[in-house]
Amino acid sequence: MNLLLLFDYIGTFVFAISGTLTAANKRLDFFGATMIGFVTAVGGGSLRDVMLGDTPVAWMRDLNYFWLIIAGVLVTIVFGKVVMTLKKTLFLFDTIGIAVFTIIGLKKALLMGINIPMAVMMGLASAVVGGVIRDTLCNELPLIFHREIYATACIIGALVYLLLNYLGMNEHICELATVVTIIAIRIVVVRFDIALPKVELKE
Amino acid sequence: MNLLLLFDYIGTFVFAISGTLTAANKRLDFFGATMIGFVTAVGGGSLRDVMLGDTPVAWMRDLNYFWLIIAGVLVTIVFGKVVMTLKKTLFLFDTIGIAVFTIIGLKKALLMGINIPMAVMMGLASAVVGGVIRDTLCNELPLIFHREIYATACIIGALVYLLLNYLGMNEHICELATVVTIIAIRIVVVRFDIALPKVELKE
Amino acid sequence: MNLLLLFDYIGTFVFAISGTLTAANKRLDFFGATMIGFVTAVGGGSLRDVMLGDTPVAWMRDLNYFWLIIAGVLVTIVFGKVVMTLKKTLFLFDTIGIAVFTIIGLKKALLMGINIPMAVMMGLASAVVGGVIRDTLCNELPLIFHREIYATACIIGALVYLLLNYLGMNEHICELATVVTIIAIRIVVVRFDIALPKVELKE
Repeated sequence: MNLLLLFDYIGTFVFAISGTLTAANKRLDFFGATMIGFVTAVGGGSLRDVMLGDTPVAWMRDLNYFWLIIAGVLVTIVFGKVVMTLKKTLFLFDTIGIAVFTIIGLKKALLMGINIPMAVMMGLASAVVGGVIRDTLCNELPLIFHREIYATACIIGALVYLLLNYLGMNEHICELATVVTIIAIRIVVVRFDIALPKVELKE
Repeated sequence: MNLLLLFDYIGTFVFAISGTLTAANKRLDFFGATMIGFVTAVGGGSLRDVMLGDTPVAWMRDLNYFWLIIAGVLVTIVFGKVVMTLKKTLFLFDTIGIAVFTIIGLKKALLMGINIPMAVMMGLASAVVGGVIRDTLCNELPLIFHREIYATACIIGALVYLLLNYLGMNEHICELATVVTIIAIRIVVVRFDIALPKVELKE
Repeated sequence: MNLLLLFDYIGTFVFAISGTLTAANKRLDFFGATMIGFVTAVGGGSLRDVMLGDTPVAWMRDLNYFWLIIAGVLVTIVFGKVVMTLKKTLFLFDTIGIAVFTIIGLKKALLMGINIPMAVMMGLASAVVGGVIRDTLCNELPLIFHREIYATACIIGALVYLLLNYLGMNEHICELATVVTIIAIRIVVVRFDIALPKVELKE
């Protein structure tokens, strides 16, 4: 399904933008911003491929990723103020990106014979690890650990995929349903300002 | 030796608890705490397997690890206050855990033909890297670099293993002696509040 | 070319010193300083080998790296004050180190059939990732992202190598020209206090 590859490209592009924006907030220089853009975009997929043993990692074998990331960084640097006014569009593409990264990670792990719970973890890792590395390198507590609910959305999306697949649905429908589920959860979460409860151990 | 696997499971479970406790101190949400518990438990073994090239990494091939980690996280979240009163028990299991992780990393590296000093490093990495990632993700200076002496205990334990093995001792005895050595060192260290000297370069 | 291996050893030794110095500033203990020295020296090469799938990673297969790193750490701890007065010598060797790491990473990636832009990235990663891990573990914003221009020097050096190689120059000359280029850029940059502009998105 070429749509999956197209969404993968879009996700890579948007992740590069998100990395560059974070770097700009930290007042990094052009090189630092480019590097943060890069690792945000490829971090999740790299960890997935390295842990699964599918090397050289995927993005090294397709030059399109390289240019998409460079483009994402340049667009952010040149049109930064405009980019920041497009928050809703970015949010939508970012959500499509994590949905697609989840599906790709999940399918890849299953293909390699990994058991289902671990395959879901690999889908999740593909989607969120880039952002975790971005925040750690920028010396911040990763956003995803204390505010974003989208990891939960990825897991639910992965379960939807597995369920429909188990029921024998067409591959395209499984993928589409997963993307739609993840987008729907994120929109609902942001709309109603839902957050997971914090872990509280003190008396 | 099934005891080694059993201890490996116990170590994984206890490491998941330690990760979740750290996450709770940082007021992460449930998802964040689960993720920190996860990487604390599997981080060391993953780095070891990835650097040795033994992929997919070990914990992905045995579903027990997954459920032990989930159990560790849940136990901590539900019975957090009780868990924190069990400090001595946790300390003992944690020490058993690092001892076993050290042995597993050391043996695996030696089996793959890695030279002895590097194999000791791999044993050490298996034992401590999970905690380092935990602290780095939680935006703290890794505990092990400035307060814990247990890395030193791992190295001495690994040397004991190598020595006994070189002397032709039974495998079970080598392993048991290593675990006992590491536990003994940690108890002495904590009891007498021993710390490594800090590196001091200033005039 | 044995000169390349010799410079690789020198780079490893100097990187171990730089890691230990950073650790000392953070008042880590001896073990922590050794670990930081270690990851600074081998971090870049490890990431490169793991992402390319060339495992066990290179430094594990050559015991010289181990002893060079231990030597670098010990020299720093014992002769710390003297080492710090040798700033210019360290700067030169450090620059030679990153130049050589860039060449090694670049050549290795090209040999494995990686496309040129990604191979340049691998050269860069070999040179800078050790320092990034060092700073991240020490809980600081990586130096390279906001002050050092040497990543830019690595990229330009890599391009010089590729150009001369494309023109059919002798391998030794390509390597020498790359090292000289990178050293020249760094000296000019430090001499005239050049910095990349910061990314600025605010109104």
